[in-house]
Formats: sequence, structure tokens, C-alpha cells
Amino acid sequence: MNNSQIENEMQSHTIKVRVPGTSANCGPGFDCIGLACTIYNDLQLTLLKEPMLVIETKGEGAENIPTDDKNIVWRSIRMLLERAGAADKFKGAVIKMENRIPLSRGLGSSAAAIVAGIKAANAILGNPLNRQELLKLATEIEGHPDNVAPALFGGVTVSIVNRGEVQTFSFVPKMRLKLVVIVPDFPLSTKAARQVLPKEVPMKDAIFNIGRASMLIGALIKGKERFLKNAFDDALHQPYRVELVPGMEDVFKAAKNAGAFGVALSGAGPCLIAFTSDRSRAENEIAASMAQAFLDHEIKTKSLILALDIRGAVVLNGEQ
Amino acid sequence: MNNSQIENEMQSHTIKVRVPGTSANCGPGFDCIGLACTIYNDLQLTLLKEPMLVIETKGEGAENIPTDDKNIVWRSIRMLLERAGAADKFKGAVIKMENRIPLSRGLGSSAAAIVAGIKAANAILGNPLNRQELLKLATEIEGHPDNVAPALFGGVTVSIVNRGEVQTFSFVPKMRLKLVVIVPDFPLSTKAARQVLPKEVPMKDAIFNIGRASMLIGALIKGKERFLKNAFDDALHQPYRVELVPGMEDVFKAAKNAGAFGVALSGAGPCLIAFTSDRSRAENEIAASMAQAFLDHEIKTKSLILALDIRGAVVLNGEQ
Repeated sequence: MNNSQIENEMQSHTIKVRVPGTSANCGPGFDCIGLACTIYNDLQLTLLKEPMLVIETKGEGAENIPTDDKNIVWRSIRMLLERAGAADKFKGAVIKMENRIPLSRGLGSSAAAIVAGIKAANAILGNPLNRQELLKLATEIEGHPDNVAPALFGGVTVSIVNRGEVQTFSFVPKMRLKLVVIVPDFPLSTKAARQVLPKEVPMKDAIFNIGRASMLIGALIKGKERFLKNAFDDALHQPYRVELVPGMEDVFKAAKNAGAFGVALSGAGPCLIAFTSDRSRAENEIAASMAQAFLDHEIKTKSLILALDIRGAVVLNGEQ
Repeated sequence: MNNSQIENEMQSHTIKVRVPGTSANCGPGFDCIGLACTIYNDLQLTLLKEPMLVIETKGEGAENIPTDDKNIVWRSIRMLLERAGAADKFKGAVIKMENRIPLSRGLGSSAAAIVAGIKAANAILGNPLNRQELLKLATEIEGHPDNVAPALFGGVTVSIVNRGEVQTFSFVPKMRLKLVVIVPDFPLSTKAARQVLPKEVPMKDAIFNIGRASMLIGALIKGKERFLKNAFDDALHQPYRVELVPGMEDVFKAAKNAGAFGVALSGAGPCLIAFTSDRSRAENEIAASMAQAFLDHEIKTKSLILALDIRGAVVLNGEQ
């Protein structure tokens, strides 16, 4: 092939995707409920026939992202190629990533990377895998559906695993949510956040969460703000994780006092996420109050005012 | 007063109400979710100034219902009169009840009796208590909101208790449910059904129920039948109660094999309730299969094919 042929070949095997960051749990929906937010990881992927890997990263955590075959985007692409029976056809890739999702903070950066890889590779192959198959594969790679489900589908998601099969129900709430995300300046590993959880919990705490998670889903779908006031509360995981995020309880109080419906640990933390409505216009005050409460505990933070992403992972070609 | 005056006086203090039976838990929504069904307790109440109590009962369990001041309807009326500051004005009552809700079977017969009493007395007094106050009072009398909430409001309900305050979110599903209720010929006390439950449960079982309860609420509100298939499953209470209802697992299988979305213990049992849609027309086959599965365990049953009641407790005067 001459250079021009190589260029044409590459163009036909190139695609851009945009995948949202996500917040799992949302308080009571531990390991079940998640939502997508308007902060993104953009990936331009070119699949190559040659066994050659080029990875360029920009944005959040770029310096720490592996650029060899340990890279999670590349590993996810490989898994998709194998699942689609195209691993012999494409043995390499050019991966250009621009990531705005903070790493190891509880905003689903690894889920976004996984979903970006498989969504892009699947699109280049002509979408051999359907929605459900992409969900299944992404869940296998990530280990759980909590973040990959909203990253794929957008909106708010409820996921269950039944005999190894994931099922995700997704919806767009009948209200415009504003999400106030406070990002503390320290990372927290999901593993560490898991280790503090007990294997057994009081039945009354399980009931506490079942009621609130159910009410949360109902109130969001129906757009009934007054039922959200207690619906973000949790008894199953956050109380055990308080010790891992200094000042957490005070930041929770600050958010509620500033007008948030509720506030929760985002995923396994350390980000905290407060929920308010677009029309309340309280987001800036909530953000400032939460940041101050963290600062009182000598923790510096960054805040993000986000909305709900309702599209999930999308192919961007043509809408650059 | 002459006889005609007495009669006029009585008429102005007489009201009829109709209150639905209810099914609590619906599988995963243990102690949180409930629904109202089209089987009713009708009460005609006359409040008397004289300290005199006349109780006439017809229908289910009429022979076992106390007709003295231990009667739960009368006790509930007294509580409402006290709450409304009218206990000095009305010291007696004529209570005429026609109850179609089986007793001690898990269909909320006591909740219906309580709600009937307070709804009727409140109406006679000109509704001094609002919806929320009636819910609070009924919950205090019954001890939990699981059945009184759907009995009052109709439809499907999600109730939480926050620092002693009950909050109930109620909705009408976007699909026409058919409820197949199988009533075994033995009673089961809620107390006995509570005693077999552990105080602590595996975290994974709590997560199991949170996901399914959330999905159940979402799928019902949105009318998405395909998400109901696993959404009635439970890991928190039914597995422990299997021993109290011989054949329960086989009846569950029979219902699902005959086409039910799902099946659950109704409240604390022993009734089992299977869920199907109006348009599937599978209700009779489901009922027959469940009855046969019980019969295989030498348990005789009665079956009720019901729909969802969407009105809750209503005053019947004028629409007798």
C-alpha cells in the first residue's frame, strides 16, 4: 500500500466516541442504582491490522495512564474484538483519548474507559454486538454493572444480576437535576472502600435502603420533588465509609442546609455528590457550602456543577 | 327527642365507606412496598352521642370478630375521635360491617378495618384530619404502614419511616395488572412469620432486594413488562418463611411456569400472590396451576382473581 492507501484504510477504521462519567449508588441504591453526568471521556480509535499500539492521552490523570498493553481501553478493545470474532483481523490500534473525568474519585473513570473502547471498536466493526451484549461485556471487564450501565445508556439506571446475567432498566427523570460533585484532593481505591463493609447487615438497615431506593426511583420518574427529601439516605455502606472520607458527615449536613434534596458518596468515593433541581438555582451555594465544610477538615477540593447525561455513550463522527 | 328527631340525628352522623384489601411486600419490597386489590371491607358507621356500641358483622370471619370494645374498628374510631378532639361529643357507635377480605391470610384485613373506622369517623366529623394525618394515625394503630398506606391511597405504595414520620409515595402502574391470590385453608399469624426472620442478613441479599425493588417500581410506573420477570424475586424474607407455608416453592414455580411475571408471599402469608397482565389472559391458568401445586402438598385453597384497586378508601354515600 502507498501512503494514500494507508490513509484511506485508516479513515475507514477510525471512529470517535464520547462516554459520560457516572456516579454509582446514589445513596440507597448500593450496587444497583447509577446515573450518568455531563463530564466526558472522548476517544478517537483507529483499528490497525498490524500488531502496533499507539496511545496518546490528554486530560485528567494522563500522566498515570499506562500506554502499553496494560491500558484498560486497549484491553477492552481486545475483548470486544475477540467477542466479535475480529481479533485476527485487527491486531493493533491508535488510541487518542481526552479524558475529563477525575481518576479514582468515584466518578466511573475506568467504566468510561472500558465503555469507550468497546463502543468505538464495535462501531468500527459495524455494531456486531447489541446493547445488551455490550452491557454484558463491559460488566465482565469492570466486574460489576454499577458504572458501565449508566455510561452506556445514560440517564438513571437500575441494574440487577440474575444468575450471571445483567439486566439494566434505564430512564430519564421527569425533572431537571443538577448534580454538585465535590472532588477531594486525595484518591480512594474501591478495594479499600469495599474492605470496610461488613458481610452481614442489620435487617432494619436493609429495609431502610429498600424503601428509600424504591422511593428514589419512583420520585425521579414521576418528578415528585417532595419525595426526594429522604430518598437519598443510606444505612448500608456510607456509615461504614465515613472514616475514609474525613468530614463527610459535616459536608452532608452542609449540602442539605444549602438546599440539596440529598447528598451521597459517589460510588466508593471520595467524591460526594449533592442533588438539586435546575430550577432551584441552589447549585453554587451548595457547592460553596460543601467545599467550606471540607476545608474545615483541612481537605482541599474542586467542585463540578453537572447535569444528568441522558445519551450515554455516543459515536461522535460527524458531530465533532 | 322523639323518634323522628333521633332518626334525623342518626342520619346526619352516618356514613358508608369501602376499603380495599392489600398485599404488602410484593416480593423484594419487604416492609416498604404494598398494593391495594379489588376486594373490600364495607363499613356503615353511625356515631352516637350516647355511650352505646352496636356491632353487626357479615362476611369473612364474622363469627370471630369481637363485638365489644375490643373491636378494632371501634378502637380505631375512638383514636380518631380523640385525635380530632371529638371524643366527648361522640361516645358510641353503630357499626355495620360487610367484610370480604379473608382474615389472617396476608391480605391486610386488620389494616382495612382500621382504615375503615378512621376514614368513616373522619368523614362524619367533616374531615378534620388530612391524608397524611390519617396515614400517621392508621400507622400508629397498626404498628407499620405496609398495609394501611395502600388501603388508604390505593394503587402501589412505597412507604418509609423517617424519625417516626411515615411518608408514602403512591402511584398507578402504566399497565393493567391482574393479581392471582391463592388463599390456603390455614391462618398464619404475622407474629409467627416475623419470628423466623433473622436480625442480620447477608449484605448481598440486601443488595439483591434493593435492585429488584427499585426495578419493580420503575418497571410498573413505566409499564415495561420485560423488566418485571425478575423484579418480584426476594432474598430477605421469603426464604426464611418457606417452612411456614408447605409447598411454597412449588407453587412459585407453578405460577411462573403458567406465565406469571412473578409471585410472592402476600404480606406475612400464607396467601401467595402472582402477578400477570390483563392482556395476557393467563390468570385462570395461573390460579389453577398454583392450586394444584398446593394440593400436591395436601393443602386446600381458594383462589381470587383480582385487579389493582386505584381509589383506596372511599366514602360511598350516594353511590350505594
